[in-house]
Amino acid sequence: MNRKYEDDSLALHTDLYQINMAEAYWADGVHERRAVFELFFRKLPFGNGYAVFAGLERILDYLRNFRFSESDLAYLEEEVGFKKDFIAYLRQIRFTGDVYSVVEGEVVFQSEPLIRIEAPLAEAQLIETALLNIVNYQTLIATKGSRIKQITGDAQVMEFGTRRAQEMDAAIWGTRAAAIGGLDATSNVRAGKLFGIPLAGTHAHSLVQAYKDEYDAFHAYAKRHKNCVFLVDTYDTLKSGVPTAIRVAKELGDTINFIGIRLDSGDIAFLSKEARKMLDAAGFTEAKIIVSNDLDEYTILNLKAQGAQVDSWGIGTKLITAYDQPALGAVYKIVSIENDHGEMEDTIKISGNPEKVTTPGLKKVYRIIDRENGKSEGDYIAMHDEAPEQEDRLKMFHPVHTFVSKFVTNFEAVNIHRHVVKNGKVIYDSPDVQEMRAYSKQALDRLWDEYKRSLNPEEYPVDLSQRCWDNKMRNIQEVKEDIQTLARR
Amino acid sequence: MNRKYEDDSLALHTDLYQINMAEAYWADGVHERRAVFELFFRKLPFGNGYAVFAGLERILDYLRNFRFSESDLAYLEEEVGFKKDFIAYLRQIRFTGDVYSVVEGEVVFQSEPLIRIEAPLAEAQLIETALLNIVNYQTLIATKGSRIKQITGDAQVMEFGTRRAQEMDAAIWGTRAAAIGGLDATSNVRAGKLFGIPLAGTHAHSLVQAYKDEYDAFHAYAKRHKNCVFLVDTYDTLKSGVPTAIRVAKELGDTINFIGIRLDSGDIAFLSKEARKMLDAAGFTEAKIIVSNDLDEYTILNLKAQGAQVDSWGIGTKLITAYDQPALGAVYKIVSIENDHGEMEDTIKISGNPEKVTTPGLKKVYRIIDRENGKSEGDYIAMHDEAPEQEDRLKMFHPVHTFVSKFVTNFEAVNIHRHVVKNGKVIYDSPDVQEMRAYSKQALDRLWDEYKRSLNPEEYPVDLSQRCWDNKMRNIQEVKEDIQTLARR
Repeated sequence: MNRKYEDDSLALHTDLYQINMAEAYWADGVHERRAVFELFFRKLPFGNGYAVFAGLERILDYLRNFRFSESDLAYLEEEVGFKKDFIAYLRQIRFTGDVYSVVEGEVVFQSEPLIRIEAPLAEAQLIETALLNIVNYQTLIATKGSRIKQITGDAQVMEFGTRRAQEMDAAIWGTRAAAIGGLDATSNVRAGKLFGIPLAGTHAHSLVQAYKDEYDAFHAYAKRHKNCVFLVDTYDTLKSGVPTAIRVAKELGDTINFIGIRLDSGDIAFLSKEARKMLDAAGFTEAKIIVSNDLDEYTILNLKAQGAQVDSWGIGTKLITAYDQPALGAVYKIVSIENDHGEMEDTIKISGNPEKVTTPGLKKVYRIIDRENGKSEGDYIAMHDEAPEQEDRLKMFHPVHTFVSKFVTNFEAVNIHRHVVKNGKVIYDSPDVQEMRAYSKQALDRLWDEYKRSLNPEEYPVDLSQRCWDNKMRNIQEVKEDIQTLARR
Repeated sequence: MNRKYEDDSLALHTDLYQINMAEAYWADGVHERRAVFELFFRKLPFGNGYAVFAGLERILDYLRNFRFSESDLAYLEEEVGFKKDFIAYLRQIRFTGDVYSVVEGEVVFQSEPLIRIEAPLAEAQLIETALLNIVNYQTLIATKGSRIKQITGDAQVMEFGTRRAQEMDAAIWGTRAAAIGGLDATSNVRAGKLFGIPLAGTHAHSLVQAYKDEYDAFHAYAKRHKNCVFLVDTYDTLKSGVPTAIRVAKELGDTINFIGIRLDSGDIAFLSKEARKMLDAAGFTEAKIIVSNDLDEYTILNLKAQGAQVDSWGIGTKLITAYDQPALGAVYKIVSIENDHGEMEDTIKISGNPEKVTTPGLKKVYRIIDRENGKSEGDYIAMHDEAPEQEDRLKMFHPVHTFVSKFVTNFEAVNIHRHVVKNGKVIYDSPDVQEMRAYSKQALDRLWDEYKRSLNPEEYPVDLSQRCWDNKMRNIQEVKEDIQTLARR
């Protein structure tokens, strides 16, 4: 049997090693040293040219309510074995740090900090797991949704994936993320209630099966639902479903608003074209054809290429699970830590995998926007005390292939982060989901088309400032020397 | 801004069309007709030869608490536009039906009902989405966990995936499902608390980075943690991490319990073999090597083939998201419905995709067990009033390739379902997760090895009784005739 707790809290929604480390810091008296952590991903998902950030509002809620409950503490002490003195420390811990984050709907890229945490070391450590859990999923789905909208253009796209989502939170937060990425509606009623997302949905095969007859089922449905979309593939789409939908629509005439039909199986390209002809021939030229059945951006692109007659797309499994890449690999890395003398010092992680070497130091991220055309020329990561917005001419170079470089002039350098939590207090009010979606659309408008192609887009530049690069090289060199010293011992 | 509700309920965690259909049934006066729905999947995930069922306990909680809250009803009326009379009906609705289900940990197969719902039509319809959302994910992960354990054998396997899980519920319920499937421990502290799953975890790279020195970091960690596993790849595994771990272990001697080291990057096969030599040479022959880094059953199989020296495996992303197939396609189909005269009648769904045609009627599922060796010979789906357990000789034939058949004698026919909800009342107490895992292991022991191979297993027989098959063919024929009649009109 699951154990039930009235005071279940999300503070325990973390990996055991975070609490172990908090204890080590606390016992050693370094737990309140100021630390800077950055949350970022190294590789864009789906081979896409950009990602759409989501998850901030949930993170702010989590930080606001961050505290261990009495049952959490009892569990940690009695079953995990942490000692009383450390439990007393955990009892009073709250998040007291600062958070800088991009806003939801923002277009973001590989290897740039999406969120920066400046907080006492132990606090920053304890929140890592939950932050990653939230951002990794929500950003993944917002990105997938945006990708799909790049293909469907102005057609309505609806999120239908709850039954295949990876448990309930994924259904709820996934459909919210998809809406931020550009989807128009959801079938999930709870998400509609919580986030004000428009709802969509008509009826299922079971309605037809319950009546064992499409004619009776459509009539029963139309009694209470004036806006009628009939699902036409329970028995045979072209021989039975579409003709019956047309018959019922004619019989009911103006007493209903016959919106159209939904196809959920078979060859959508063929069936939609045939159904279009039948609807048109019956005079229902305005009737819409809505399709669903394991769709994603690749299938939609192919169906459109074959001239499928589709007015509205329902997307389930492939969106809500990000089927072709179900995880974004965002990580959370310490880049700076207060030393014995109260000064901030850089810290770095080296790795056998070169792309996993971190970029040390307290940094800021600027979006470099061309003043003439309003387009983004790239993102620019600089040390915190640099001021690229005051430069006339900026050298931007690739952080790996450093010879790939360009000079930019007549630009604006916009800090992409907002200060959202100050001394533990949330100072940012999230807009509603519709505003986030609108913001995301605007942000995409500033991006050249070459970065928005769904297959083989160009790589958007995310560059380091010269100082940032030099600092990274110096840190690597220091570690190498330390290792050599060790080897000689 | 998200809207916050004190009385948020899961009754709204459904697709809009379910409520639309409930309204149509209610308005037409058929909402209380007895209906039978079956929940099943058509295809085993990951090319595996079996699946492990999970999710029942969460479903029973959901059904027990199923009711629309006042804020749910206000939303449905004011924002979605349902009328007051129907809202009044929804206000009093509870789940009053019967549920038959396999237990968690049970080994299950394609195309057999995992759960059977017998309930008033509208109630059975409203709960569909949540049931699928729960079973699809939890069964998927329990199966993935079981697959991994088939490869790792007796070595300890730990679930480390929270940061990459698809939001919080997936982390929590996914690690529970993985434990049912056979995993030994989790890093998620909240899951440890809620489900009594053993915890695992040591420290991260950030501990080393915070001290900027492995020696100091390991010492700081060891001060409070007597059971020490040191993470050795922050700077350089073989030149720095392993030698430093050995040095600290020697210095601290019996004051700590040096369990071993963890490798999290680089070539695990090579590094683990080299680290093993170094540990052995230093006298730490009992020290364990724990590895993590994007592992799954395929990588583990390859590492083992290369002689990697691994005592314990930490599995993250690939397990918690079921990376190679992140959705199980379970569906929920009506098979029988009360008619105007109070009699139950079969109902069927035909489809352009032949494998999607449903098997109509109220049925039972039997596991056919050979009395001599205790092994499962296959599963047998029969009409509810058949009694295969009383037969001496059973003909079993493939439901698609019907000429593939065999006769079984000296068998036991065990009904795989338990009656878990009776007239809306939960009558089944779930065991704890450890018991479910033990049950699953036993159930797997009854399966021949040919079904447990991770690559290209044999297909386990899930057969229909002759009556069941004849009944399905008759139903298909009736629909075909109806369609012809319609076409002639």
